[in-house]
Amino acid sequence: MESPSSPKPIKVTAICGSLRKASFHHGLIRSAIDITNNSINGMSIEHIDISSLPMLNTDLEVDDKFPPEVEPFRQKILQSDCFLFASPEYNYTVTAPLKNAIDWASRLPNVWADKAAAVISAGGSFGGGLSQYSLRQSGVYLDLHFINKPEFFLDAFEDPPKFDDDGNLVDEDAKEKLKAVLLALKAFTLRLRGRR
Amino acid sequence: MESPSSPKPIKVTAICGSLRKASFHHGLIRSAIDITNNSINGMSIEHIDISSLPMLNTDLEVDDKFPPEVEPFRQKILQSDCFLFASPEYNYTVTAPLKNAIDWASRLPNVWADKAAAVISAGGSFGGGLSQYSLRQSGVYLDLHFINKPEFFLDAFEDPPKFDDDGNLVDEDAKEKLKAVLLALKAFTLRLRGRR
Amino acid sequence: MESPSSPKPIKVTAICGSLRKASFHHGLIRSAIDITNNSINGMSIEHIDISSLPMLNTDLEVDDKFPPEVEPFRQKILQSDCFLFASPEYNYTVTAPLKNAIDWASRLPNVWADKAAAVISAGGSFGGGLSQYSLRQSGVYLDLHFINKPEFFLDAFEDPPKFDDDGNLVDEDAKEKLKAVLLALKAFTLRLRGRR
Amino acid sequence: MESPSSPKPIKVTAICGSLRKASFHHGLIRSAIDITNNSINGMSIEHIDISSLPMLNTDLEVDDKFPPEVEPFRQKILQSDCFLFASPEYNYTVTAPLKNAIDWASRLPNVWADKAAAVISAGGSFGGGLSQYSLRQSGVYLDLHFINKPEFFLDAFEDPPKFDDDGNLVDEDAKEKLKAVLLALKAFTLRLRGRR
Repeated sequence: MESPSSPKPIKVTAICGSLRKASFHHGLIRSAIDITNNSINGMSIEHIDISSLPMLNTDLEVDDKFPPEVEPFRQKILQSDCFLFASPEYNYTVTAPLKNAIDWASRLPNVWADKAAAVISAGGSFGGGLSQYSLRQSGVYLDLHFINKPEFFLDAFEDPPKFDDDGNLVDEDAKEKLKAVLLALKAFTLRLRGRR
Repeated sequence: MESPSSPKPIKVTAICGSLRKASFHHGLIRSAIDITNNSINGMSIEHIDISSLPMLNTDLEVDDKFPPEVEPFRQKILQSDCFLFASPEYNYTVTAPLKNAIDWASRLPNVWADKAAAVISAGGSFGGGLSQYSLRQSGVYLDLHFINKPEFFLDAFEDPPKFDDDGNLVDEDAKEKLKAVLLALKAFTLRLRGRR
Repeated sequence: MESPSSPKPIKVTAICGSLRKASFHHGLIRSAIDITNNSINGMSIEHIDISSLPMLNTDLEVDDKFPPEVEPFRQKILQSDCFLFASPEYNYTVTAPLKNAIDWASRLPNVWADKAAAVISAGGSFGGGLSQYSLRQSGVYLDLHFINKPEFFLDAFEDPPKFDDDGNLVDEDAKEKLKAVLLALKAFTLRLRGRR
Repeated sequence: MESPSSPKPIKVTAICGSLRKASFHHGLIRSAIDITNNSINGMSIEHIDISSLPMLNTDLEVDDKFPPEVEPFRQKILQSDCFLFASPEYNYTVTAPLKNAIDWASRLPNVWADKAAAVISAGGSFGGGLSQYSLRQSGVYLDLHFINKPEFFLDAFEDPPKFDDDGNLVDEDAKEKLKAVLLALKAFTLRLRGRR
């Protein structure tokens, strides 16, 4: 329990760019939640499902209202302090579902604005890195403040195995790196709030 | 009518990154079709609707089959000689619906492979240009051969008006530039075929 | 004069990506210096000339020493609180002289690390914007924290004239926008310092 | 010896983005020259040194003349059929010396125009890949036609060793991949010429 003088805990919303159940990126988010629960004070992570959002089409905005699935998503983004994107790389950039979620929440008023963010990925060789730089470029327009360091790219196919058959992250070195990302996200979020 | 010795006419498939009915990008494609019908021999353009494609999720591929809406889309891409992308810029990159179409057609076997392409856009100030470079980067993985010149960015909000109230392109200068893109796409497609 | 309780003034180092004497980008920096001197408290800008840096070649680093022209440049970067890049776009990315300066200061220890930055440009149509996104991508590795807003792209060739014959910025609207960038850079630098 | 009916051999100019004598990228070019001499007919590669080019400054263009070191470089580019760029990644993009060479040859008339190109790199983890996408983006403006496949990124620090102490490529698998790049460059150059 927080004492009255404790800073308000940081609310992280985690978003997975893959809709596939066994996606490594869901595994990365589960691992990030475990790590945070077990070893990072003053921060909590909630995964938000983006699979029910309709494909972006502004004709669906009627009478200045967003579609019913979109409104609660936007509220959740608005109430978050910062974001953890688990962003697979498809064809050298972000996935369609992730782009879709980004675009819905960017409709005015842009609910991403002026918040901290981190991005992680797993994949072949470069570990999905190209999706990260594409997302960072969108972040300029969205007014997201991404942490620079550490960057997290996981070569998912290199030995030893990084994930078990259920898509859970099992590599201890990768978990340590993921924890370092989470700590950097926490520190940057606090720094941007104006207290350290 | 083609004489027996004429080269086979070039089949262009046009894809619009916006699902909005009144989108300028639908207007650009309608204009491209008009221009081609009226003044470019040996080429035809067909617009393919991407609004019914489900959001990419490889769990939807069951028994090595694509979902029912995806299969005919992939067939159309496979049978095309080249592509015209009308690609609005959302948050400094391509839209989710366009990315979704790209990703479905890239599933193995990648049906974009080794074909020519052009990209056009309209928007504020830079006319949607950032979506174009993002799409070109995906094109490396997709093995699309984009024409370099001319590039087509239309500042849609500058005077005189570029589109009428129904989203039809009405600016003659823009139409000339669009025709130049189409001629370059035709020439590059033929050049890659090995005859000029 | 600062009272003992005033925050230390912010030292901005401005870097021009063009070596051309009459470059608009030198004009943008002169204007930024004027604006800061005349209307922004607690901040000063110094332009650092990068024309005498040798072309990057790590063979020039002998006995763990940088070449004589490089060392004072690195010291100036190290002692800066933040940076203003005036970055023309050549061939859709930053210029060679700017990249050269960036690379020398990134040699270990990287003296750019963990500082705030802003980037401005002038040019045709998109006003040099593509150089900005390329520089921001380098900034991830350099660990620079770029402000997101406002972005400053100046179409230098649009009427009314933006620069006089000596390359001085004369457009009042552009000066206001430049001032907004400088104020945002100041605010972000202070925010990252942990006081507001 | 070419018979009278043979197609004219393809002249490739190779450009190294690093000025460092022992650079892996010089090693890649030496290996590409060996491979071509020994096993690819109808193509020759010449490495052109870019270290003596002055830093780009258009004030050095006097009386419509390029500086003395620039003119022969531009002539060599003009006379080439296609290009092989060995492009190290510094700070997530191309090096200053490479950008400098690109910019000099792009001054009007742009001598890169309408030619084929390939890019290769070596480095940590992603093997310098980010420099390649930056170079490809410049290629749109330069009107270079890059091959899409195969891409060549060499993780230079992975076991077994890829280079010997003199910076020569010694890994047979990497040599095979490099040969595949060269064959693809040859094929694409011929295809763009209009014969196959």
